[in-house]
Amino acid sequence: MAEPPVRFGILGCANIARKVSRAITLAPNSTIVAIGSRSLEKATSFAEENGFPASAKVYGSYDAVLDDPDVDAVYIPLPTSLHLRWAVLAAQKKKHVLLDKPVALNVKELDVILEACESSGVQFMDATMWMHHPRTLEMKEFLSDPQRFGQLKSLHSIFSYVGGPDFLTNDIRIKPDLDALGALGDTGWYCIRAILWATDYQLPKIATALPDPEFNESGVILSCGASLRWEDGKIATFYCSFLTNLTMDIRLLGTNGNLRVHDFVIPFKENAAPFYVTSNSRYIELSLGCDPPPSEHVIATDLPQEALMVKEFASLVGGIKGLGSKPEKKWPNISRKTQVVIDAVKASIDKGFEPVEVVF
Amino acid sequence: MAEPPVRFGILGCANIARKVSRAITLAPNSTIVAIGSRSLEKATSFAEENGFPASAKVYGSYDAVLDDPDVDAVYIPLPTSLHLRWAVLAAQKKKHVLLDKPVALNVKELDVILEACESSGVQFMDATMWMHHPRTLEMKEFLSDPQRFGQLKSLHSIFSYVGGPDFLTNDIRIKPDLDALGALGDTGWYCIRAILWATDYQLPKIATALPDPEFNESGVILSCGASLRWEDGKIATFYCSFLTNLTMDIRLLGTNGNLRVHDFVIPFKENAAPFYVTSNSRYIELSLGCDPPPSEHVIATDLPQEALMVKEFASLVGGIKGLGSKPEKKWPNISRKTQVVIDAVKASIDKGFEPVEVVF
Repeated sequence: MAEPPVRFGILGCANIARKVSRAITLAPNSTIVAIGSRSLEKATSFAEENGFPASAKVYGSYDAVLDDPDVDAVYIPLPTSLHLRWAVLAAQKKKHVLLDKPVALNVKELDVILEACESSGVQFMDATMWMHHPRTLEMKEFLSDPQRFGQLKSLHSIFSYVGGPDFLTNDIRIKPDLDALGALGDTGWYCIRAILWATDYQLPKIATALPDPEFNESGVILSCGASLRWEDGKIATFYCSFLTNLTMDIRLLGTNGNLRVHDFVIPFKENAAPFYVTSNSRYIELSLGCDPPPSEHVIATDLPQEALMVKEFASLVGGIKGLGSKPEKKWPNISRKTQVVIDAVKASIDKGFEPVEVVF
Repeated sequence: MAEPPVRFGILGCANIARKVSRAITLAPNSTIVAIGSRSLEKATSFAEENGFPASAKVYGSYDAVLDDPDVDAVYIPLPTSLHLRWAVLAAQKKKHVLLDKPVALNVKELDVILEACESSGVQFMDATMWMHHPRTLEMKEFLSDPQRFGQLKSLHSIFSYVGGPDFLTNDIRIKPDLDALGALGDTGWYCIRAILWATDYQLPKIATALPDPEFNESGVILSCGASLRWEDGKIATFYCSFLTNLTMDIRLLGTNGNLRVHDFVIPFKENAAPFYVTSNSRYIELSLGCDPPPSEHVIATDLPQEALMVKEFASLVGGIKGLGSKPEKKWPNISRKTQVVIDAVKASIDKGFEPVEVVF
């Protein structure tokens, strides 16, 4: 039963790789075996500072990680514009791919990555951590309950944080040659994923950007929003930004209940995360108040959500390696749906906020 | 100093009049002296059931209330389509006007009402109760703080409740000849007022309805939404509905902080109402969590918000009667701004979700 742990290589020394390195160490079925950076010195410091095992190999290139036969899977936190090249190469070298979001600059690029993974038989997953928190499953159970929630009709999501002056000058997320989608690709990715998650990954029919996104002088989006409309009349709005204080909301309205969460992307606390629901509300006599008040549900977790993400990914990789399973198609499929909606919102912005059809 | 209490007459026996009758009794500076209904029997029952003073007069018409020289002010909870006639007549008879919302079917009608009030020198106020809760002032103080909140950039508001089958068949709020604005006039009124309140009553430049409102078979709106855009780039969205479980949210995003409230229209509890803020948030080391978590502020009140509304209105009326003050223009002014935005959203719906300029 004791499968050997999945052996991870990491491409690059991005800040987020520190958190994911810790997660690989925390997950029971994975281990770090290599890191590569264009600078051997940076990779060496990174391995030291992040408590890599003494056996972990340190390389002065990404290629060296991909050529290492001891590496089963790679985590790729490189700037989005480099995803196409390195994710495809990783797949070609038979490495399973845990790819940070936004996964690609557009769905055309993503399709090349997904085709490379499929033809190599490797698992693809995007690194959207909150999907793996046990709270996410608990919330879905509430949403699936016809008595407590009913039919979903209205969806709202916000993810925003203040980048600050250094971020707005230097971060890769505001550079047109590195992360051209800006806030839409970064915080908007989470909003759109939340909306798709809530609808059981039913794609909207039409995306219409809200007027007047904010851009930096290079034309990269710093804040924007959109409405999404489904054929059955459901309607969603989202807002994503680098310019307003940290806000991480999902708000869902059903015919019998509603749900909200205010830290869906990164829980305020690592080991316990709340959400709030109300069902079958009514005004009390004379409308002097409302019943019931929202109830809080706090979901505990032993492992943080990023370690649960690594665990899930490693479990799929282990199945493919050890048992000859096929890669799980759910994950590339929902990455692609998320990207398709991002592309439609971007197209709507480019067309002056015209409605744009969402085509899978 | 002991001003005599303002003497209220009530036009009609609407359900909401029960709550406002109680409020008139609770407020320290007002008293009920008359009620009129088209049915004397209904008015008599209403007075009995709602504990009116024995001295209160009961009339079989609205006119009789307006002709009663002992009536200083009227509360008008009639269907919206009757507001023009009865509010104008009340003003002409020198009665101060507390008018339920939506105040009119459109701004043209409202202007006739406001002109009648102005030329008669009577106070006009719409019966938007939450404006008078002490929580509203506390929230505004937070929003006005450049350190804790900063510049307002993004606004979201929702007010929705489930009408239920009887409501959706019989309530005045879904009848085209009584409340033609449907959910937009009823729950949408609160959303738009909340957004205007948050912006210090700065009017948006453009209103664009979200696609696919729901209508009943008579064409009355059962749910809809819109985006509002200001010249400085601020953007708001709102959603109002009779079809999804009770939700009463304001969500405001500033450059340094954010604020949310989940029972802004009618607090869950009558004597204490919370709101939630966060300021200057940051990710903790390795982005393993976020600090600070939202803080809850609970604002107590001895009098319920509807009694505070009556108290404020009666205080203005008392000033006009006793001290010769001029009517306070703030209240008609914000009613008109609210109506102007409603009209623009309605026009956008009628034009197939085209952007519509908001003109004061």
